[in-house]
Amino acid sequence: MSKEGLLLVLSGPSGVGKGTVKSSIVENKVFPFEYSVSMTTRKPRPGEVDGKDYFFVSVERFKEAIANGELLEYNQYVGNYYGTPVAPVQQMLKAGKDVLLEIDVNGAQKVREKMPDGVFIFLTPPDLHTLHLRLEHRGTESEEVIRGRIEQARKEILVMQDYDYAVVNDTVANAVDHIKAIVDAEHVSVKRVIDDYRKMVKED
Amino acid sequence: MSKEGLLLVLSGPSGVGKGTVKSSIVENKVFPFEYSVSMTTRKPRPGEVDGKDYFFVSVERFKEAIANGELLEYNQYVGNYYGTPVAPVQQMLKAGKDVLLEIDVNGAQKVREKMPDGVFIFLTPPDLHTLHLRLEHRGTESEEVIRGRIEQARKEILVMQDYDYAVVNDTVANAVDHIKAIVDAEHVSVKRVIDDYRKMVKED
Repeated sequence: MSKEGLLLVLSGPSGVGKGTVKSSIVENKVFPFEYSVSMTTRKPRPGEVDGKDYFFVSVERFKEAIANGELLEYNQYVGNYYGTPVAPVQQMLKAGKDVLLEIDVNGAQKVREKMPDGVFIFLTPPDLHTLHLRLEHRGTESEEVIRGRIEQARKEILVMQDYDYAVVNDTVANAVDHIKAIVDAEHVSVKRVIDDYRKMVKED
Repeated sequence: MSKEGLLLVLSGPSGVGKGTVKSSIVENKVFPFEYSVSMTTRKPRPGEVDGKDYFFVSVERFKEAIANGELLEYNQYVGNYYGTPVAPVQQMLKAGKDVLLEIDVNGAQKVREKMPDGVFIFLTPPDLHTLHLRLEHRGTESEEVIRGRIEQARKEILVMQDYDYAVVNDTVANAVDHIKAIVDAEHVSVKRVIDDYRKMVKED
């Protein structure tokens, strides 16, 4: 079958453990996927290979890439630009390969605008998940702490609602199991396979 | 959390092996779910218990149930009525339990009309999946056989497009693995969990 690959976007609040979850998927070979190589204006560190670790470019070239719409998303961090070139991602998907992007929530929002067919997974802090338990024991925390926590949770839930899945990162193993199930299920979702079935019965 | 259970509807063309797949899920305890007890006008066989194996009712009572909208779906088979009472299903879902219905495609269509939030899984004959291979080797079969097979496939694909997932029943073990992944993934889908998160941050 000539099925397209899945664009998997793993995101979530800062500090939730996106990188650790992604590393576990890679190390345990939970499912096969392709990396997208980022473009950056940061200087290469010793041993880093252009086109493998990053596409190392000048600030001028990076701004040109932004202007040309060559990037799915980009951001600035400690004075350098980082971005995800769209062309290699689209090539890998066309070739039927799944692509995993691990990015922050702002990046994920931009990717969603450009590639709404992606599978957007929100990694949820366990304390958001257990918030209701904490709120039932209000006596143990000050009103101010509780109010701040609820405000933070509200913001996270507002972001989460634009995602397809919410996976609690209570343990890395649990989170990885859920992500594996999501990938398996999405591969057999009717919206992704129906076109291939339709092609089959088109008589030539 | 007070999350509702999933209504899982397993269906597919006649003879595809729905019953075998369901039995394997039950025997291997792949995931926990509740049975829905069907209503029927058939006479009880020795050992069958009313309310456990079936709700055994008269034809008059069955027709009343149809008229009152008490049934999610029903059909006639060898002169007897069989149907799925809606009330117990809704009670189990409200109690957070998953319910699995294994029904024919006509029944599944009726369930979809009444409970569109269900998870609809279409079990696909492996020969539909491998049809494209067969069509590439046309020399080995008569034009008439091929044309008939394509017509049948067209009908199956028309039905499949209203489902959420298409699982190929190439082996029972593979089909069950996919269904388990679907259930796991649906349990963490944002559309199913977001209301619980929202409830958490509602200050009272």
